[in-house]
Amino acid sequence: MKAFTTLALAAVVATVALPASAQFAKPEDAIKYRQSALSVLGTHFSRLGAMANGKIPYDAKSAQESAEVVAFMSKLPWAGFGAGTEGGKTKPEVWKEQAKFNDLASKMEAEAVKLNAAGKAGNVDALKAAFGPAANSCKSCHDSFRNK
Amino acid sequence: MKAFTTLALAAVVATVALPASAQFAKPEDAIKYRQSALSVLGTHFSRLGAMANGKIPYDAKSAQESAEVVAFMSKLPWAGFGAGTEGGKTKPEVWKEQAKFNDLASKMEAEAVKLNAAGKAGNVDALKAAFGPAANSCKSCHDSFRNK
Repeated sequence: MKAFTTLALAAVVATVALPASAQFAKPEDAIKYRQSALSVLGTHFSRLGAMANGKIPYDAKSAQESAEVVAFMSKLPWAGFGAGTEGGKTKPEVWKEQAKFNDLASKMEAEAVKLNAAGKAGNVDALKAAFGPAANSCKSCHDSFRNK
Repeated sequence: MKAFTTLALAAVVATVALPASAQFAKPEDAIKYRQSALSVLGTHFSRLGAMANGKIPYDAKSAQESAEVVAFMSKLPWAGFGAGTEGGKTKPEVWKEQAKFNDLASKMEAEAVKLNAAGKAGNVDALKAAFGPAANSCKSCHDSFRNK
């Protein structure tokens, strides 16, 4: 588990350290990319939250699909935070406190893996147990690195 | 293959026929969702195109990752085209010619599956062979259903 976390962190660090030019023609392309990836993630995450909190009926198939999307999307946004891509709602602290940002990104990815497992479990209690920690992992990163 | 295509088509039809309210609180949420999903897809598809066309060096790992993202994302946008979600760049023909739209959506998904296989093959010739038909599947849908 420790080894996995360290490896995942190394992967994120490697991605974030790449200059934006390596993957995006313009900084605004990177900004749009990370916003789009996080928006798709957020749509499915909110749907899981509505089920976990009883605002919409629990639907095992929908929960599994949404958790799978969250897990997949959780890997994507970080490539959009390369050097020179300041902007959008992102605070400049992302590029000043990269170790902290990368750590929170890795934690969110790890929670998304657990959420995916909970989705496959097919019962609302598993979803409820995994949703809270996952939501906290979103919030702790937004609190430090996203403007309101 | 015929059975698979028919099943895939049925799945898409079922998704598109759902009212937007079933999955999105507001029509603009559905519009943002489909735009975001297609934007992420487009970023990775363009990257594959740049490799296929020799504009950037072929990188097997990057190609495999991007093709995987394209294949995953190809399943998502359609839920955002539910009844009552007219808007954005989408022509109203989507809701007037649903059979045609669903058919083109299914064809794109099928090409994305082939592109994913080409990404895993790990050589540029496989990518070149799969990229053209996939690009055509995007274009034929955009020509009929997207405003410029």
